[in-house]
Amino acid sequence: MSKERTLAVKIRFLGAGYHGFQRQQNALTIQEIIENALLKILGQPTTIFGCSRTDTGVSAYEYVFSFKTQNPITTEKLKGALNHFLPDDIAALEAAEAGENFHARYDTKEKEYEYIVRNTRQKDPFCEGRVYRYGITRLDENLLNRAAAHFVGRHDFSAFCSADDGAKNHVRTITHASVERRGDDVIFTFRADGFLYNMVRIMVGTLLFVNQGKIDENDIPKIIESRDRKRAGMTAEASGLYLKKVIYGDDPFNKREETDG
Amino acid sequence: MSKERTLAVKIRFLGAGYHGFQRQQNALTIQEIIENALLKILGQPTTIFGCSRTDTGVSAYEYVFSFKTQNPITTEKLKGALNHFLPDDIAALEAAEAGENFHARYDTKEKEYEYIVRNTRQKDPFCEGRVYRYGITRLDENLLNRAAAHFVGRHDFSAFCSADDGAKNHVRTITHASVERRGDDVIFTFRADGFLYNMVRIMVGTLLFVNQGKIDENDIPKIIESRDRKRAGMTAEASGLYLKKVIYGDDPFNKREETDG
Repeated sequence: MSKERTLAVKIRFLGAGYHGFQRQQNALTIQEIIENALLKILGQPTTIFGCSRTDTGVSAYEYVFSFKTQNPITTEKLKGALNHFLPDDIAALEAAEAGENFHARYDTKEKEYEYIVRNTRQKDPFCEGRVYRYGITRLDENLLNRAAAHFVGRHDFSAFCSADDGAKNHVRTITHASVERRGDDVIFTFRADGFLYNMVRIMVGTLLFVNQGKIDENDIPKIIESRDRKRAGMTAEASGLYLKKVIYGDDPFNKREETDG
Repeated sequence: MSKERTLAVKIRFLGAGYHGFQRQQNALTIQEIIENALLKILGQPTTIFGCSRTDTGVSAYEYVFSFKTQNPITTEKLKGALNHFLPDDIAALEAAEAGENFHARYDTKEKEYEYIVRNTRQKDPFCEGRVYRYGITRLDENLLNRAAAHFVGRHDFSAFCSADDGAKNHVRTITHASVERRGDDVIFTFRADGFLYNMVRIMVGTLLFVNQGKIDENDIPKIIESRDRKRAGMTAEASGLYLKKVIYGDDPFNKREETDG
């Protein structure tokens, strides 16, 4: 019998056509699409573990999943075969041999999310479904960047979590929160050891309320402290949200010399 | 009875979902979608004239159509209503009062097309259907830029025209032809007083043959002279092609002070 291997694959996907990553009974998900491709490639049913749940419509620049197999396929061939069988809106960027106990979800150290607000009323066919278009007011990126800094630190983020999440522990550490403008786009960037359900979208919605004067920028610490979802802003829509990168302590994609050599 | 007006509308569209601009009996086209929207807005059937035929899958940054109406709707309201009724992949950028005899197709002075080759094997979900991915060889943008210069001038471009076109006169004047690299993208730009059916795509396909050594760069003048389609290269696929802008002598979008004041 062949040796069992743990493989990690980095993918990029456009979320518009899927009900998120995680397999569901009655909706098309990215996990299902990938597992179907792996069935063709490896010749047997394979369960993959994604680095995070993502919501319907959320996209990823870099998303990592892992799985176990006894198939001796090379990582290069695996990547090529995945790109052959996957649809246009999902691509394999890299495949790597991982440590025996590597798990794409449990081993994440940090994740970075980006949220793009297209700050204009003008519809743009090249971006619809890929940004959140918001033309009500001109966003003040300096105000928003100042306000976002209040999120940094180790807090109980229950006020920034949708009710139907499964997490028992709502304490997370945000290590970076910033807002900058690039032309008509206002980019929100958050980095943390983990995110609760809808957390980035609620933080963005809250910052949009700050810009509208509905919430004072200095009240954000009090809202965090309240742990009351009703005191935070709306959940900004999914189309603007991107998983930008996943950081691992022991990164399977940064030790290829060892496994190839 | 109200006065008859000629209106011009600048739109942007993503071509992937349509069989080109021009109305067809049995296929969904952009013209049909827009005329259906105008029927709702103006309350009566309206025929529009587009600045050019575009093929299935071709996109446009700026495309202009014109039509006649007696409806007194303001240009601002017309733009807003179009964006309300048009699907996500077509947007109205601007609407303007045009001179009585303005015709979006017959009055074009020059058009600029851009063709984007993504010069890598790596599939990218954010760009699939929006570029032509070409990873066989590394493109030499300096060679291609030199070779493209042979197209500039007034020539009979029969060798660069697909057979089933309706044009009797194949003489066109190319005023600009260049190739440049931006990262993995190699951008081909052509400006002319008009283009024949598939002309840009055949010029790009011919330049790709030059890069592959199948055609010598200095043979392009002879190929033009031959007027023989078989001597030119393949027709590059539609997904990389964009109508970039349309230039009018009497530009309806550059005299708004007069019509508003």
